[in-house]
Amino acid sequence: MKIVLIIADGLGDRPSDSLGGLTPLQAAKKYNLNLLAGEGMVGLIDPIQPGIVPGSDTSHLNYLGYDPVKYYTGRGPFEAMGTGLQLKGGDVAFRANFATIDHDGVVVDRRAGRIRAGTSKLAKDLNMKIEDVEVLFKEGTEHRAALVLRGEGINTEVSDNDPHGENLRPKDIIATSEDGKKTARILNEFYKRSLQILKEHPLNRERRGQGLREANAILYRGGGMVPKLPDFNQRYSIKGGYVAAVALVAGICKLVGLKDFTPPGVTGSTDTDVNKKFQYAVNALKEVDFVLVNVKGTDIAGHDGNAKAKKEFIEKIDSAFESSFMKIKDEIVICFTGDHSTPVSVREHTSDPVPILLHYPGSRMDRIREFDEDSAKGGSLRLRGGDLMNVLLSSANLAEKYGA
Amino acid sequence: MKIVLIIADGLGDRPSDSLGGLTPLQAAKKYNLNLLAGEGMVGLIDPIQPGIVPGSDTSHLNYLGYDPVKYYTGRGPFEAMGTGLQLKGGDVAFRANFATIDHDGVVVDRRAGRIRAGTSKLAKDLNMKIEDVEVLFKEGTEHRAALVLRGEGINTEVSDNDPHGENLRPKDIIATSEDGKKTARILNEFYKRSLQILKEHPLNRERRGQGLREANAILYRGGGMVPKLPDFNQRYSIKGGYVAAVALVAGICKLVGLKDFTPPGVTGSTDTDVNKKFQYAVNALKEVDFVLVNVKGTDIAGHDGNAKAKKEFIEKIDSAFESSFMKIKDEIVICFTGDHSTPVSVREHTSDPVPILLHYPGSRMDRIREFDEDSAKGGSLRLRGGDLMNVLLSSANLAEKYGA
Repeated sequence: MKIVLIIADGLGDRPSDSLGGLTPLQAAKKYNLNLLAGEGMVGLIDPIQPGIVPGSDTSHLNYLGYDPVKYYTGRGPFEAMGTGLQLKGGDVAFRANFATIDHDGVVVDRRAGRIRAGTSKLAKDLNMKIEDVEVLFKEGTEHRAALVLRGEGINTEVSDNDPHGENLRPKDIIATSEDGKKTARILNEFYKRSLQILKEHPLNRERRGQGLREANAILYRGGGMVPKLPDFNQRYSIKGGYVAAVALVAGICKLVGLKDFTPPGVTGSTDTDVNKKFQYAVNALKEVDFVLVNVKGTDIAGHDGNAKAKKEFIEKIDSAFESSFMKIKDEIVICFTGDHSTPVSVREHTSDPVPILLHYPGSRMDRIREFDEDSAKGGSLRLRGGDLMNVLLSSANLAEKYGA
Repeated sequence: MKIVLIIADGLGDRPSDSLGGLTPLQAAKKYNLNLLAGEGMVGLIDPIQPGIVPGSDTSHLNYLGYDPVKYYTGRGPFEAMGTGLQLKGGDVAFRANFATIDHDGVVVDRRAGRIRAGTSKLAKDLNMKIEDVEVLFKEGTEHRAALVLRGEGINTEVSDNDPHGENLRPKDIIATSEDGKKTARILNEFYKRSLQILKEHPLNRERRGQGLREANAILYRGGGMVPKLPDFNQRYSIKGGYVAAVALVAGICKLVGLKDFTPPGVTGSTDTDVNKKFQYAVNALKEVDFVLVNVKGTDIAGHDGNAKAKKEFIEKIDSAFESSFMKIKDEIVICFTGDHSTPVSVREHTSDPVPILLHYPGSRMDRIREFDEDSAKGGSLRLRGGDLMNVLLSSANLAEKYGA
């Protein structure tokens, strides 16, 4: 049997005053989700474990069966994926800032006046080859960026150059072990060349003319090696795909070997075309056995503290189920959940467990006819994120017996 | 946000005939606990894991985030703490007995006629210094005592002298490895000196006169090194305190670096002044971020098989909530649970999971308006002891996100 796992990012919530004490999921009209709940099973899932506040990266890894304790190598690689850089296992990724230094090379602004416009042009010119090493550089939000080194003998055995304060010089880039010498050499050469490139860059000339702080230096920190993740398809002996517009989630899916079925033009926001995403997922199931679909609007609305927008996005999801998964609900395994809670009252991720819905032909039935945080606690399922792939494969009759 | 964790020792129970088939928690009038349950979340917690019968030591360690598999070094150190000895990481502690030997040095009674009175006088005289090693000796209940060695080069690489039977000689004290030679030498010297001290002791002369068995030898066994526990305050970046009259619990709290806020005069029994304990805990929250409060009466009543006393002690707890934690319930995280179950029908600890109640501003609501073993199973929480600190920190918005 084929499997679709639909993850509404940041789905879980808490009671909201603006919704009369209900959660967005409780307040939303959700004919299809409730129908699936009534026919199938519901419950709560702790994406990592109780009390641990998940990131979207750690929870997606865990849901796909990659224990973050083993495979999560820090924010560097995963934030780099979040910029849209396509990374490979073994790449070394750093979090980077565009910064402003003065004539003496002293940092006067670690964030280059929180520069927004034009950083993509700067970043583009910082991609280069040094010796046999590929240097990838990609802008993120505002002054943030990702610096990635790809090549033989590259590792994280180097110091950061970010002085983590102002009126300080960037720190010397030195190897912290014998093995780090090549990486330090490449980074030193990159820093030298980047100073030259940024100084002469039209965008900085323009900013100079406007009296704005130039983005004339790169500070980096928090290097991590992109983990080499065992291939999803080999691991589970099935073919997998994904539909996800958010770069971080797409990056993880790609890294484990899921095939991209994301339609053009969709976004990771509340205004995305959920219908189109779900249609592409249904089509993908003709080719592959497993599809992960991520919709991000719930998380965005949570971070914005907008209960109404979150409720409406859930209604949009429910409505998109109608002409997609509901048509094939009696032939496949459908799992709907979130990767963590982002309560509108908190505006950040929390460790609250997330409601989960599991529907497949012939399953046990909870007969709980509402799908939300409160009713889910009375259901059959009480999972931790690391259980999810096993439960899905087992529901699809794809699990092997452990023993005789 | 600040956190109070109230542990009613041995809280969990089973249906009791003398309470019409209810548990003491079900039978108790508990206005405040029910109110908190209705406003917050309830559930069940396995102090260690399902089916494991917890001690108060292993469960308190686990609740505070110290995995007993890693940190529990056996009964020796923890029983020694239970006598009230203040131990330090690295001390080596043995369980000891006052025993009776005859003129030939053969053990005729391993328990010295289950001596009760006066052992504190004997124990006091057995504190001494041998070479550079401090020998601490403290009486426990009846014939039981704790023997602790504190000093450089002391370890557990020695044999026990307890023959574990009568009409046998105490076993030779020998080092079981090269490293144990110093410890064996100290213990041999202690045994020699203790024979002399006990022989001449007024209490033994008195017992001789009364035809009672003399406590004229010390048998010891089960040596363990007091674990060096990472400091609680550093580990969680908060300041912690405790209110606990029971020596074992207080010893663990002290060992992890919690500050003592226990009021003078309170006890670890059913007649303790719960009000005073809770008032001191509320005051402690002005100074620290986290307070653990242990009340022991529930466990005592459980061991006594006294359902009525257990029910009444729970009512005493509930009533003490009124003028303490209820006054600040909307400003802090309140967690109420037990460290294990001590059902009155069993009179011993059991592995039954324990009801837990969690209340903090803005939390999800279970709307379960009774707090007991039965209603708790319908709640949101299903935890293991090792999750508890994470859940508490997360509820207080003190948890860091794991990932991005």
